[in-house]
Amino acid sequence: MLAPVRWITKDSKILSGKADLKAALPGKLRLIDQTKLPEELVYLETDSLEAIYDAIKRLVVRGAPAIGCAAALGLAAVAQNISGTTEQFISEVKKAADRLASSRPTAVNLFWALNRMTDKLASTSVTVSEISKLKEILLEEALEILEEDITMCRAIGHHGAHLIKDGSGVLTHCNAGALATGDYGTALAPMYTAFENGVKFKAYSDETRPLLQGSRLTAWELARAGVDVTTICDNMAAQVMREGKINLVIVGTDRVAANGDVANKIGTYGVAILARYHNIPFYVAMPYSTVDFKTADGSGIPVEQRHPDEVRRGMGKLTAPENVNIYNPAFDVTPHELISGFITEKGMIYPPFSENLKKLQG
Amino acid sequence: MLAPVRWITKDSKILSGKADLKAALPGKLRLIDQTKLPEELVYLETDSLEAIYDAIKRLVVRGAPAIGCAAALGLAAVAQNISGTTEQFISEVKKAADRLASSRPTAVNLFWALNRMTDKLASTSVTVSEISKLKEILLEEALEILEEDITMCRAIGHHGAHLIKDGSGVLTHCNAGALATGDYGTALAPMYTAFENGVKFKAYSDETRPLLQGSRLTAWELARAGVDVTTICDNMAAQVMREGKINLVIVGTDRVAANGDVANKIGTYGVAILARYHNIPFYVAMPYSTVDFKTADGSGIPVEQRHPDEVRRGMGKLTAPENVNIYNPAFDVTPHELISGFITEKGMIYPPFSENLKKLQG
Repeated sequence: MLAPVRWITKDSKILSGKADLKAALPGKLRLIDQTKLPEELVYLETDSLEAIYDAIKRLVVRGAPAIGCAAALGLAAVAQNISGTTEQFISEVKKAADRLASSRPTAVNLFWALNRMTDKLASTSVTVSEISKLKEILLEEALEILEEDITMCRAIGHHGAHLIKDGSGVLTHCNAGALATGDYGTALAPMYTAFENGVKFKAYSDETRPLLQGSRLTAWELARAGVDVTTICDNMAAQVMREGKINLVIVGTDRVAANGDVANKIGTYGVAILARYHNIPFYVAMPYSTVDFKTADGSGIPVEQRHPDEVRRGMGKLTAPENVNIYNPAFDVTPHELISGFITEKGMIYPPFSENLKKLQG
Repeated sequence: MLAPVRWITKDSKILSGKADLKAALPGKLRLIDQTKLPEELVYLETDSLEAIYDAIKRLVVRGAPAIGCAAALGLAAVAQNISGTTEQFISEVKKAADRLASSRPTAVNLFWALNRMTDKLASTSVTVSEISKLKEILLEEALEILEEDITMCRAIGHHGAHLIKDGSGVLTHCNAGALATGDYGTALAPMYTAFENGVKFKAYSDETRPLLQGSRLTAWELARAGVDVTTICDNMAAQVMREGKINLVIVGTDRVAANGDVANKIGTYGVAILARYHNIPFYVAMPYSTVDFKTADGSGIPVEQRHPDEVRRGMGKLTAPENVNIYNPAFDVTPHELISGFITEKGMIYPPFSENLKKLQG
């Protein structure tokens, strides 16, 4: 399986979960450099604060869960090189965490993972003052975050795999796959599990302009795993559906409102409408923690605008004139009535969502 | 106004319609090189058979009406340099026409224009044997084809402009504009006419993957004319509609079946579904000759597949892995029930289309 975010020891052992911490240190954060895909598979191995900051900022690593894991393991890697008194150590680790947190100012998972790391350090340091021990505790917590993520991915795959049958055509949008998480991904997890179970299906991957995560990343990782995958331009989805090639759509999400409205990569809403028109079920896969009960519905989710050059200079070349306006919303909101169900690590959730999303709480 | 296909005399006069033929010869075909847009506006001026063949093949000129005009003016330009007996002249012109016809084997308008040129030559040569006169006749016919196209565009603009009101947002897909015709285009003609009439509206242009005619060409020509135009990626159309920015969609078409089903650039069908979902009227603009009464409905229109590299190497860079399947249909068919009306040079056509398309015949 693809290992986009891992801890690598000095004798090149890859760790992803519980480990002999003494043997694990010293080590480094290892990332797949996603900016180089699909042209080449390059790993970045580092324990440098600035290199990790830069990797998150430049989207070397992307996807909320993957960013969280990278920040946690990254902080553990950086902490190894900090010395001084216990107070100095704690203060320097906190500073490093603040620096990493500023790399993507809207990435909730980044803050969550870093807070969990510094909280753990703070609570542990009440009773433990030995720095070498604190370094182990930090790595242990980071590996725990990664392991939880892997477990979550596998559970989503387990709960969603029944949707995919022999002969199914499954469309996805953007990349909510292994590259965005610690392991099987969210939207792609049911596909990986079905594939493991020997189900013969075809995956379709929307290209996903402007940044092409669907063709560059989703198609790449599915093909690498051996899944039969076809890339289409975003505007071909309707035709592919009309031809009867798609039986099921599964996408990921950044945020689910309390009523089941879903924020996800721009284009998701359009795919949901097309699926409804062709009577194709449309599912959303995510960790249950993505449900934001404080947001009543999609109207409470502001749509971020991104830089026009993402569209205008798509792949280095000028593809729209300089004097033309560009509208570049980063995501859209799919209303709950277009969604057939949610696939979470706790199980499937079906309508009515306002009631049923709540039921799995606690 | 943009003049994508014109006759240019040796003293650099641009001719588009009826002209003093003696003063018009010798001259050349002048084309805007659309492969260079939007980065630079470059004209190609030539009377070389191979250069014209190459220009049509390489999409220097594209769009059915523009290709027809370019082939006719191109043949007139090439004919100037042919000498010999009347029989030799006619035979050489015929050979040149055959060569040009082979540049785009599926371009119906190309064959139509070239046949009209060689038919004219054949009928004229019954009574006229003077080669210099035959050369004038060829140019006259080519300029007539161009003028008819310009008149057609203006009439579409005239009949469709009432749909666009102050404050309207008008979405289009691909390029059915000036660059695809001799003049105002088809889908863009109502916009140009409304703009001339002082109507204040906003145009939205779908990027139109894989070849980006929407951002490279439509946005470019609308902005150049002074129209307020915004480019969006294809997958943003649903979001822009949801935000209330679009009141009207107008697209072009390659072929209309007798029941009103419409073949057009891939993505058109999806836009039509999105428009219906948002209760936005969806119009198709075209010369009436585009209606193919021999094709009963859209199921009789085979969908051409184009080369995977158009998607895989979008803008020179690899954007999908080599080992991934690509599905690249050139166009799709929009069923007539999603179409609000047709805008033709003979007037508007509303449902029921099976009846009303026929009514304007003859």
